[in-house]
Amino acid sequence: MKTALSDKVINRLTLYHSILTGYIGKGIENITSPQIAGLLKVDASQVRKDIKLLNNAGICKVGYSVKELKKSIEKTLGFENTKEAFIVGAGNLGLALAKYDNFAPYGLEILALFDNDPLKVGLATNNKQVFHISKLPDLTERLNVSIAVLTVPGSFAQEVADLLIESGIKYIWNFSSCILEVPPEVQVWNENLIGNFLQFTVNRNS
Amino acid sequence: MKTALSDKVINRLTLYHSILTGYIGKGIENITSPQIAGLLKVDASQVRKDIKLLNNAGICKVGYSVKELKKSIEKTLGFENTKEAFIVGAGNLGLALAKYDNFAPYGLEILALFDNDPLKVGLATNNKQVFHISKLPDLTERLNVSIAVLTVPGSFAQEVADLLIESGIKYIWNFSSCILEVPPEVQVWNENLIGNFLQFTVNRNS
Repeated sequence: MKTALSDKVINRLTLYHSILTGYIGKGIENITSPQIAGLLKVDASQVRKDIKLLNNAGICKVGYSVKELKKSIEKTLGFENTKEAFIVGAGNLGLALAKYDNFAPYGLEILALFDNDPLKVGLATNNKQVFHISKLPDLTERLNVSIAVLTVPGSFAQEVADLLIESGIKYIWNFSSCILEVPPEVQVWNENLIGNFLQFTVNRNS
Repeated sequence: MKTALSDKVINRLTLYHSILTGYIGKGIENITSPQIAGLLKVDASQVRKDIKLLNNAGICKVGYSVKELKKSIEKTLGFENTKEAFIVGAGNLGLALAKYDNFAPYGLEILALFDNDPLKVGLATNNKQVFHISKLPDLTERLNVSIAVLTVPGSFAQEVADLLIESGIKYIWNFSSCILEVPPEVQVWNENLIGNFLQFTVNRNS
């Protein structure tokens, strides 16, 4: 039985993973909890506590084995279970996410983009093609995709979300500023960028 | 004395604010906690608890006054204290954030963008100009800007962050996949997009 990990732990484990990837790039074999803690400005005891939640984290005398710890995080967070998704809205944000170099290694594969702008349809970015939104219902069914990343302007978001849901999408990662109304079987994750920014500023700058 | 608000509360209050903005657009005057809770799929008791943290939330017989509640959230989260920032990196992500319609109403004003690509320098998006990165030290000092939104590729992020810090930037909202090494007086907020995605999938799909 796996214990559910809190959102904060998942967030920190992903950041540890980024640090480990950097260490591997530099050929460094071991890492200590104070090193990780120093880079993220958190407590080393917090880092050790998080790492204890992983199975087989490769503890050794001089800290943790970078490779083992990286593998443990990947296993715990399920990076090997690739999740396929569509990006809906091929504006700057959709294109930025399609190009983002940090999704595929974490098990999120963007298959294609969709837009209603004829000037964008047929373009490709990072080997991902932009299809007309009218193709979405058919491709969702044929490719059995259940996740959509919604990057359309807020004023169109509900209308597009309705189409996604009719097409069989079950999970919407919502980057628009609109709060979507969806049926109970559909899950929405609001990527609340301004909320993230305010978390950074409200308590710190006041 | 203000109590510090937890990150989760700040995040939810921002989402409530988006809902209230939508209600105002539709001319609806009152809202109940179950209505808010239903849209966000959280407990109504949680919504009431969060709203109790605000001063003067305009409780009335038929729920909350939409306008009063919106104002209370704005006051509590300090939307009127505008924070000015630069976007560094005028690629798709930088441009998307420069165009994002949901920052200014929440007190985050993007003054300008910076890039080292001569093809981008001089362009303007959403009335914000792209300057060459070499202008950053001077403009940071003259405009007294302390916040930078870092949207360069991970492989350049540390080098650019070093320049930001030398220029007097104190807060870096880091959208790159790189974990930055910064001196103690500089604060970094890692916008860990893949971590946010994993929070959505790890416990739910396993």
